[in-house]
Amino acid sequence: MSPIIALMTDFGLSDTYVGTMKGVILRIAPDATIVDLTHGIGPQNLLEASVKLASAVPYFPAETVYVVVVDPGVGSRRDAVIVETAVGRFVCPNNGVLTQVLRTYPPLRAVRLTERAQLYCLPEISATFHGRDVFAPVGAHLARGASMDVFGDPCTPDSLMICDLPAVSAESGPDGRVHLLVPILYPDHFGNLITALTATQWRAWVEHSGRTVLEAERDARISAGDAQWQGIVRTYSDVARGTPVAYWGSSHHLEIGIREGNAAATLHLRAGDPVAVTLYGLSDAST
Amino acid sequence: MSPIIALMTDFGLSDTYVGTMKGVILRIAPDATIVDLTHGIGPQNLLEASVKLASAVPYFPAETVYVVVVDPGVGSRRDAVIVETAVGRFVCPNNGVLTQVLRTYPPLRAVRLTERAQLYCLPEISATFHGRDVFAPVGAHLARGASMDVFGDPCTPDSLMICDLPAVSAESGPDGRVHLLVPILYPDHFGNLITALTATQWRAWVEHSGRTVLEAERDARISAGDAQWQGIVRTYSDVARGTPVAYWGSSHHLEIGIREGNAAATLHLRAGDPVAVTLYGLSDAST
Amino acid sequence: MSPIIALMTDFGLSDTYVGTMKGVILRIAPDATIVDLTHGIGPQNLLEASVKLASAVPYFPAETVYVVVVDPGVGSRRDAVIVETAVGRFVCPNNGVLTQVLRTYPPLRAVRLTERAQLYCLPEISATFHGRDVFAPVGAHLARGASMDVFGDPCTPDSLMICDLPAVSAESGPDGRVHLLVPILYPDHFGNLITALTATQWRAWVEHSGRTVLEAERDARISAGDAQWQGIVRTYSDVARGTPVAYWGSSHHLEIGIREGNAAATLHLRAGDPVAVTLYGLSDAST
Repeated sequence: MSPIIALMTDFGLSDTYVGTMKGVILRIAPDATIVDLTHGIGPQNLLEASVKLASAVPYFPAETVYVVVVDPGVGSRRDAVIVETAVGRFVCPNNGVLTQVLRTYPPLRAVRLTERAQLYCLPEISATFHGRDVFAPVGAHLARGASMDVFGDPCTPDSLMICDLPAVSAESGPDGRVHLLVPILYPDHFGNLITALTATQWRAWVEHSGRTVLEAERDARISAGDAQWQGIVRTYSDVARGTPVAYWGSSHHLEIGIREGNAAATLHLRAGDPVAVTLYGLSDAST
Repeated sequence: MSPIIALMTDFGLSDTYVGTMKGVILRIAPDATIVDLTHGIGPQNLLEASVKLASAVPYFPAETVYVVVVDPGVGSRRDAVIVETAVGRFVCPNNGVLTQVLRTYPPLRAVRLTERAQLYCLPEISATFHGRDVFAPVGAHLARGASMDVFGDPCTPDSLMICDLPAVSAESGPDGRVHLLVPILYPDHFGNLITALTATQWRAWVEHSGRTVLEAERDARISAGDAQWQGIVRTYSDVARGTPVAYWGSSHHLEIGIREGNAAATLHLRAGDPVAVTLYGLSDAST
Repeated sequence: MSPIIALMTDFGLSDTYVGTMKGVILRIAPDATIVDLTHGIGPQNLLEASVKLASAVPYFPAETVYVVVVDPGVGSRRDAVIVETAVGRFVCPNNGVLTQVLRTYPPLRAVRLTERAQLYCLPEISATFHGRDVFAPVGAHLARGASMDVFGDPCTPDSLMICDLPAVSAESGPDGRVHLLVPILYPDHFGNLITALTATQWRAWVEHSGRTVLEAERDARISAGDAQWQGIVRTYSDVARGTPVAYWGSSHHLEIGIREGNAAATLHLRAGDPVAVTLYGLSDAST
C-alpha cells in the first residue's frame, strides 16, 4: 500500500511552492499518495493552522505522515520536529502548530531534527523555504520507512511548543445562569464563524445550570455582531433563509452561520471577535 | 486499475473540508485516484454546479465515481442518491445538481440512500457535513466495488430532482429574423461569460432563418452590456486585443469574451444577465 | 513506476478546466501521477509562467512530463511543441513560456506538432481549449511511452520562441559604486516581491566593486516604494516584525519582503515596478 503524505501550509496555490514540495516528495517516495489538507491558512497563522489540522487528522489513516509548514521563524534557530501520535506522524517547525492536535492525541514520541537530518534534506538548504528543503524530504523519507531516530535526537513532550488558544470566558450566577464570551477562531469559506466553544465545555456548563441539554439549547440567547436570537439548532435548514443560526459544527465547535448566506460578511465579524451566549439556569425567572 | 473518484463541491480550498473527505476516502479505498473537478462552485449554486459538472463528465473514464456535494439542504430531510449513467455513477444530494448531466445521459438506475447506507457511512453523522460523513464514504465503497443496491432502495428516474435552467427566449419574424435573449450562466475564471445558448439550439434557429450557418454567424448582431458587434467567430485571436468576441466555447455554449481581457469585469455582466443575439433572415433587408 | 505529469496553467481552480484535463489524462494513462504546479498564473502572463516554471522544474524527477498551458494564441496558427531537456519534457504552445527553463536547460530535442499529432488528440479539437483537446492527451501519450517523433516534425532550437525578460539596468562609477534598477517580476502569495536580479548577476557586480560579498550585502542600500534601508540579509527573522527586508529567495532571485507582513500591499509595488539597489565601491567615501 502506498504511503500517504498529507500537506498543510500557508503557501497558497498561486505560486509553485506547493507543487515544488510535491516534486521533492516524488523523487524520494515515487509511490506516495500526496493529499492537500489545505494551503489556504492565513499567512503565519499558527492558531488557524492548529485548529484546522486537528479537525482533519482523525479522518485519515493512522499511517499518514503530515508535513505542516506554517513557519514564521523559517531560517532562524527555531527547531524542526517529528512527533508521533496515535493518529499519525507530524513533521513541522516546533512552533505550536500542533497545539490542538496534541491536546487530543498526546505525543508518543518526538525527535528534534539535528545535523544528522541533513543527510535526508536537499543538498542546499535555503533560509526561506524549508518546506521544500527540509520538511518535504524528511516527510518523504519517513513515509518510505525511515525510522524517526535517524533524523535527530529524542526530545521530551514538554519541549514541544504549545500556543495559547483563545479561551471562552464565563460569568455564572447563583441561579445557574451563565454568560459565556466565546471568541471566534476563524470564518470558513462560507463565512460560517467557527468559535472556541466546544460541545464538551458546553455540556459542563449545562450541567452547572441544572438544565437538560435540550432545554439549554432551546433557551440559549446568542448575540453575534448586531444580531440576537434564541436557540442552538441542529443545522442551517432549521431556520429560514437569510437567518442567523447557531449550531454545533462538524468539528464539535459552536458555529454561527446564516442559512444560505455569509455570516462573517453580514454580521461584520472576524477572528478574535466575541460571540455572547447566555445559558439560563433552572431557577431563572427570565425563561 | 485503481478506481477514480472525482470530487465537486462548493467548499473552497481554504478549509480542510475537501482534504478531510480525501482522508475518509483513502481509509476505505486506499488505492483510489482522487481527482478534483472543482471546489470553487459558488456557495449553494446548484445551477453553476450542474452546468460545470456536465462539461467535465464526458472526458472522464466511464468507471469514474463522482461525489458531488453542493448541498443547501444538508441535515434536513432531502434525500441522498446514487445515480448510474452511461458516463459514470454519481453520489449526491437529490437536489437538482445532476440536472444538466441527466439531460444528455439519462439515468440507467438510481438508488435513494436509506438507513441501510449507515453501515457504510461514518459512525457519527453530523448535521452539517455530509460530504465527510455520507457522500465520501459511500463514494469510496462504490469505487471499491460495492453494489448500488446495498445503500438503499431503487428509485424511479422521475423522482430525481431537476432544476429549472435559465432558458433562451426568442422572437422570430416572418422574414426569418430571430431575436434571442440569452441568459448568462456564469463567468469563468477569465471573465468569459458562458451563456445558456447551445450550438444545437442555434443550428435550429439558423435553419428557421433560411441562412447557412456560415452566413448566420458572419451576420449575427451581438449586444452584451454596453458593447455591440457583428459576428460569431472561432476563437479569441480572430479579433484584436481588448475587443469583445462571441464564439462557441469548449462545452458548445455561446460565450462572450474579450481577447486577453476580462469580459465580466469590462462589460459589467454577471450570471443571469441577458445577452442579445440577432440572427438575420434570408429576406432581411438590413443584411 | 507510474509516470509523472506536472500541470501548469492560467486556468484557475473555480472552473472544471483543470479537472477535465485530468480526466483526459487518466483515460489515456490511468496510472499517471498528476501533480499541479500551479493554475494561478495571471491570465496570459507568459513571463510569470516562465519564471515560476523554472523555479519548480529542478526539484522534480527528470522523467516528468510537463503540460504547460498559458496560451493567449489558442486556436490561431501558433505552433504547439514538445521540447526535451535534461530536466524533463515539456508540452506547450510555442510562445515563450519555456524561456526561463531553456536558459538553464537548453533543448536537447524539439518537435513541432503537425497533423500527425491529431491521432493522439481528442477526436474533436475545439478552438479555445487545447489544454483539454491537444496538450493533455499528447502529454499523457508521452508519459505512457510514445516517442516524441510520432507527434510531428523535428524543429531546431532557434525556432523555439523566447520572451524578453525584464532586465536589470546598472550604472557604475569609477569608484566601484554600482546603482542597479531591478524590476519586480511578480509578488508571491505572501506579497514578497520576486525581482529580476539573480545571485549570479549580483556576484559579478560585487566583484566589479572590489568588495567581498559579505561587505557588499551588509552595506547595500535598498529602495523599494517609500522604504529605504541598508543590507541584504539571510531571512525574514533577521529583522524585526513589520520591517522591510531584502534577501536571496529560494530560487536565487533578490526578494523584497516584510517580516510577517505583505510587502506588495504595504509598499504599493507590483510586477514591473523597479527596486533600487546601490552597491558601494571599495574607495567609496559614503560607506
